Amino acid sequence: MPSKLTHEEAEALVISDDPEHPANLISELCRDFYKLGWVTGTGGGISIRQGEHVYLAPSGVQKERIKPEHIFVLPFAQSSVPKPGSKRDFLRIPSKKGLSESQCTPLFWNAFTMRQAGACIHTHSQHAVMLTLLHPRDAQSFKISHQEMIKGVRIGGVGKTLSFFNTLEIPIIDNTAVEEDLTESMAAAMEEYPDAPAILVRRHGVYVWGNTWEQAKTQSECLDYLFEIAVKMLLAKLPLVGDN
Amino acid sequence: MPSKLTHEEAEALVISDDPEHPANLISELCRDFYKLGWVTGTGGGISIRQGEHVYLAPSGVQKERIKPEHIFVLPFAQSSVPKPGSKRDFLRIPSKKGLSESQCTPLFWNAFTMRQAGACIHTHSQHAVMLTLLHPRDAQSFKISHQEMIKGVRIGGVGKTLSFFNTLEIPIIDNTAVEEDLTESMAAAMEEYPDAPAILVRRHGVYVWGNTWEQAKTQSECLDYLFEIAVKMLLAKLPLVGDN
Amino acid sequence: MPSKLTHEEAEALVISDDPEHPANLISELCRDFYKLGWVTGTGGGISIRQGEHVYLAPSGVQKERIKPEHIFVLPFAQSSVPKPGSKRDFLRIPSKKGLSESQCTPLFWNAFTMRQAGACIHTHSQHAVMLTLLHPRDAQSFKISHQEMIKGVRIGGVGKTLSFFNTLEIPIIDNTAVEEDLTESMAAAMEEYPDAPAILVRRHGVYVWGNTWEQAKTQSECLDYLFEIAVKMLLAKLPLVGDN
Amino acid sequence: MPSKLTHEEAEALVISDDPEHPANLISELCRDFYKLGWVTGTGGGISIRQGEHVYLAPSGVQKERIKPEHIFVLPFAQSSVPKPGSKRDFLRIPSKKGLSESQCTPLFWNAFTMRQAGACIHTHSQHAVMLTLLHPRDAQSFKISHQEMIKGVRIGGVGKTLSFFNTLEIPIIDNTAVEEDLTESMAAAMEEYPDAPAILVRRHGVYVWGNTWEQAKTQSECLDYLFEIAVKMLLAKLPLVGDN
Repeated sequence: MPSKLTHEEAEALVISDDPEHPANLISELCRDFYKLGWVTGTGGGISIRQGEHVYLAPSGVQKERIKPEHIFVLPFAQSSVPKPGSKRDFLRIPSKKGLSESQCTPLFWNAFTMRQAGACIHTHSQHAVMLTLLHPRDAQSFKISHQEMIKGVRIGGVGKTLSFFNTLEIPIIDNTAVEEDLTESMAAAMEEYPDAPAILVRRHGVYVWGNTWEQAKTQSECLDYLFEIAVKMLLAKLPLVGDN
Repeated sequence: MPSKLTHEEAEALVISDDPEHPANLISELCRDFYKLGWVTGTGGGISIRQGEHVYLAPSGVQKERIKPEHIFVLPFAQSSVPKPGSKRDFLRIPSKKGLSESQCTPLFWNAFTMRQAGACIHTHSQHAVMLTLLHPRDAQSFKISHQEMIKGVRIGGVGKTLSFFNTLEIPIIDNTAVEEDLTESMAAAMEEYPDAPAILVRRHGVYVWGNTWEQAKTQSECLDYLFEIAVKMLLAKLPLVGDN
Repeated sequence: MPSKLTHEEAEALVISDDPEHPANLISELCRDFYKLGWVTGTGGGISIRQGEHVYLAPSGVQKERIKPEHIFVLPFAQSSVPKPGSKRDFLRIPSKKGLSESQCTPLFWNAFTMRQAGACIHTHSQHAVMLTLLHPRDAQSFKISHQEMIKGVRIGGVGKTLSFFNTLEIPIIDNTAVEEDLTESMAAAMEEYPDAPAILVRRHGVYVWGNTWEQAKTQSECLDYLFEIAVKMLLAKLPLVGDN
Repeated sequence: MPSKLTHEEAEALVISDDPEHPANLISELCRDFYKLGWVTGTGGGISIRQGEHVYLAPSGVQKERIKPEHIFVLPFAQSSVPKPGSKRDFLRIPSKKGLSESQCTPLFWNAFTMRQAGACIHTHSQHAVMLTLLHPRDAQSFKISHQEMIKGVRIGGVGKTLSFFNTLEIPIIDNTAVEEDLTESMAAAMEEYPDAPAILVRRHGVYVWGNTWEQAKTQSECLDYLFEIAVKMLLAKLPLVGDN
């Protein structure tokens, strides 16, 4: 946990006049996501990786009230894999008492290491959760096709955008008691579904990533739109795949 | 009703530059709750207890337009139990004509005295009301399990957080003609369900509390999320308890 | 149409630093109502009567972009009844070209003259419209009981508040091709249902009034809440009246 | 692509203190449309034609974060028809790297040339998409009557407003893999339905136009309201046409 940086250097990592600085963006985007119902009740959040720095919100706080000075900064290259419960290397730890890094840390790392993502968003959107509830208990994935909004989603979250006629498929994994315990099953699903731009977690929410925060955000919006309309279609007994 | 404080001392209880001062927080949070549909039409509100001072909004006013100078301040230690209709001790009464303290006063007191809560929120959220309407007339409680958002809720509202595998149970009590007349049945339900973090009132809304305003607010969000998804599940004929 | 006031006197009727001045309030409230989905697409609005002055928004404009200088001011005492199509007396006409007074003028007048209301709100809320659509074609009124939000509604819109155990009844009248042609049927319904706090217009919306703009607004919120939950109850096949 | 204007003249086309300048309006309206869920995930947008200048947002960007300096300006009179994939004449191209003009360009042009529209709005509103999904696969159009909000819609989008008793009819065309490939089928539908104020695109969204941006916007609101209530009516098995 010790940082090689002086206090001034560490603070400079999160204090900036640039609204596009990751510490400012995370604060702003969490406020926006709160209004969308994605991160209420302290759930959900976003992590941004900029080169060798990873910016993280704290765990268990009101996401819509995060300030830049609450942001953790970690070196992307950790001295050991950031496994659940593992001790991590930090460049900057907020001075406010009682804050610990997001419990999603190893899950965000999955996106950074397995997809070279520049940002990863986690939401508790009810559209995502209802969608998993409306799938049979043993369903391995959610599929949808013939929707314009599919065109806003990239192959594997970071490749070329999908076509209107492609079928989008997103794996659904089971939830666990502790958030970090999703690390391995999320990684396994990402390996089994290399084209998937996101991972749905049954009765919990979704993880979405992208090359940049802009792509992670716009893909989260496209996917949330698709989850919402898929729920409506299932309730109206309309098929999700095909155009009939 | 007489206060031992001078006028200046009483005013100083609600006028502060600190956005986290209870009088400022109540005003701000009521605006936020209004946008969530929790306190429209003058209904609902929040009371904050800070040490020996209890801060209360007025009754029957537009909650989204409350200003700090409209806030009542009461000593937590009342010379008699703040029963329905009883005369209460005040430290500060707003000078604006026609204001009286919230009709929820003795209900908030239940949370302060029986759970040592630091804040209590009352909402008329339609999700809470629809949930009670979708329960059989003689249902004593609402139960749900296997939802990530359960993890944001504390045992008894003030203890340890629940686990994903715990079943959350919230008693449902009948509504009464006068808000204050809920005092005894709410207290009885709190005794019968010591682990419950909230009390649902049939055809009316919900009372939620926490150790602090932050915990009361984030638990209100988690519970409102759970009420909303439970309504959707019931309408889709999905079971609320279990993971099948 | 000629005003006895000088141009300066007429302008002074709508230009004020006081946020509670009717011209400022109408602009502000229309923005708020737009966000609630009550006055989109130029529909709906609010008129405030202050003593002998009536303040009106223009017809057919974007309600969320009204400015105080767009407000019409009329003497409450008109030289003839403000019937549909009739010429009205004005104290102030906005100088912006192409504006005419709200087509709801004679309907607002119904509330002012028959109920001595100080404000009247008209919305196109989908909850109101869906509620009329879910009623049989020949239903004369909507009834609901045993809802906490009923307690925010006043008898006749201007009397004592209703009790939780009262049954709220609101007449439903048929829509007409021209808004002003609702004048007589609205007045007839107000006579037949002296206790009704509002008039529902089938496939159109609702008119709600109160002693003051605050009461008109909070009653609009309570009624819209009740319309919304009544629609949900009807779709879920729950009875609107009774407590079973 | 070369412009006859100097750099200063081209920049002056989009930089203005006037909030009603098209470059400012497009930025503001896109933020508003984002909040309505019309243009999330980079989808949708608005183009304004002012005399011989057409103002266009860029393609594939976050619509709620557009700034005036991102706006393209084209001469309305193009040296060749702005067909899909065709090279277009520009008066001003944003200097920010990687921006290209909206893929809706030839579709907006349909509205400008075939209806002399002054503005055209494209949304991905879920109400529009669900409405197309709830129509039979071979339905050629959506029809509705006896709704007050029909009165806010103009014949052909630019003529006289419809009456409450008129039946509004909007053609539904099939979606294509590439947005620009909708150009011909949209034009064909506009010819076949000269009175239609909009074109619905199955599984995609809607195009709405008007004489001015105000009319395009208020008609988009009226139509979106009608799409939403029509979806509710279809799910509740209520007929869309007639008054029974």
